[in-house]
Amino acid sequence: KVIWTLLVTILGYASTLPVGDDSICTAEELAKYSIIFTGKWSQTAFPKQYPLYRPPAQWSSMLGVTHSSDYSMWKKNEYASNGVRDFAEKGEAWVLMKEIEEAGQKIQSVHGIFSAPAISSGTGQTSTELEVHSRHPLVSFVVRIVPSPDWFVGIDSLNLCEGDHWMEEVSVDLFPYDAGTDSGFTFSSPNFATIPQDTVTEITCSSPSHPANSFYYPKLKILPPIAQVTMVKLRKNQLGLSAPYFNVPAKSNEIIDSVS
Amino acid sequence: KVIWTLLVTILGYASTLPVGDDSICTAEELAKYSIIFTGKWSQTAFPKQYPLYRPPAQWSSMLGVTHSSDYSMWKKNEYASNGVRDFAEKGEAWVLMKEIEEAGQKIQSVHGIFSAPAISSGTGQTSTELEVHSRHPLVSFVVRIVPSPDWFVGIDSLNLCEGDHWMEEVSVDLFPYDAGTDSGFTFSSPNFATIPQDTVTEITCSSPSHPANSFYYPKLKILPPIAQVTMVKLRKNQLGLSAPYFNVPAKSNEIIDSVS
Repeated sequence: KVIWTLLVTILGYASTLPVGDDSICTAEELAKYSIIFTGKWSQTAFPKQYPLYRPPAQWSSMLGVTHSSDYSMWKKNEYASNGVRDFAEKGEAWVLMKEIEEAGQKIQSVHGIFSAPAISSGTGQTSTELEVHSRHPLVSFVVRIVPSPDWFVGIDSLNLCEGDHWMEEVSVDLFPYDAGTDSGFTFSSPNFATIPQDTVTEITCSSPSHPANSFYYPKLKILPPIAQVTMVKLRKNQLGLSAPYFNVPAKSNEIIDSVS
Repeated sequence: KVIWTLLVTILGYASTLPVGDDSICTAEELAKYSIIFTGKWSQTAFPKQYPLYRPPAQWSSMLGVTHSSDYSMWKKNEYASNGVRDFAEKGEAWVLMKEIEEAGQKIQSVHGIFSAPAISSGTGQTSTELEVHSRHPLVSFVVRIVPSPDWFVGIDSLNLCEGDHWMEEVSVDLFPYDAGTDSGFTFSSPNFATIPQDTVTEITCSSPSHPANSFYYPKLKILPPIAQVTMVKLRKNQLGLSAPYFNVPAKSNEIIDSVS
């Protein structure tokens, strides 16, 4: 338990480091990972405007890619691609899949694509396998927050290679992002295109700084993580789902509130 | 165009053959395929009670598995597992993923799992990669019809191995099934558990034979396919999305009607 917490802490830190040069990976050519996504979007942790019906709080399919530093699926403070916009706004994956395919064909920057099933509640789990390559050791993915205008969680270019070996396990807390393409303020806002398009920005408890915003919690220092993702290296021929199932109780926003 | 139609016809027929003995596959050990799912659930083809909002007609994530004949994900006229029930009723994949994992661990009957992103309309496309093994040459998957009580489309144990080689391409028309766990009659029926549970049955234009049923079209001989799936064998190191994108115009039920 302690080791796990430590691991989460270390690796959570590691994930915030700038993306390193992926050309120096001298690990074994291929590695397979199980990737487990855990929703932590509970009404307890996020009481404000929590969507209860039509649709209730839930998560879209996960769409991800393993790639080199020549490809970027999405990046904070940069403009979202058309594919990311379609996915973040409507959960439509096709354009994003085509963008990934083109990057793979044109500049050989993509090793593979992966997807995990949608989750029909805010706090469930989903899982799939992914494969990285020593020349394509980076992982990126997006999962749409449903309902929302154009909000998502994800990872941008996490390097699973550490010099001459592949990471055994990595776990990262996830926070909401705004794709910058729809100006809705709340989970259930009607569509309202942002023109001109804005860049991808992190949504925090104080930004956008407007009381109407669904994630605006002026008493908090930081939002609790709305989701978590864990990647566990698989042994050869091991089935990807053999990863542990973590039951993480939902944290109350109120407790965090009292600490801050 | 003609060749393609022919292929669809031949292979559509092939898929209705009984599942062969998968132990005689002497093809190369591993093969990768691109799998493309095309929704054909248009208001033109299925005008009756076509769901237009909250939610509009759409498809869940695809959840699939490559396996040997020792495993069965679902089977017509047999009872659905708890995992298939959860998936068909709510789109929740976790229990089904756990069932697949257990089958993989206990009886080595599963080679891999695959998933493709949900489609946010009745007529879109989605795609992913899958890998088969000469001892696990069968493909099964399910995609939930959304909204619906417990209806899905899918494939049960399609053998991609033909003796000493892997099929180059296979395409199958898909028709709706009822998981037998919810007694709703229409796309938007409220939940109403079927007790005792019924077996998995195909929904046709005449069965269930009740005018209230969403697929009841007494003037038709057969329903038009509500979806189609195509699997294309990939060359080594080819990215799974490099498969052709097929634009299939929606067929009108009326035209088929006039023919029947």
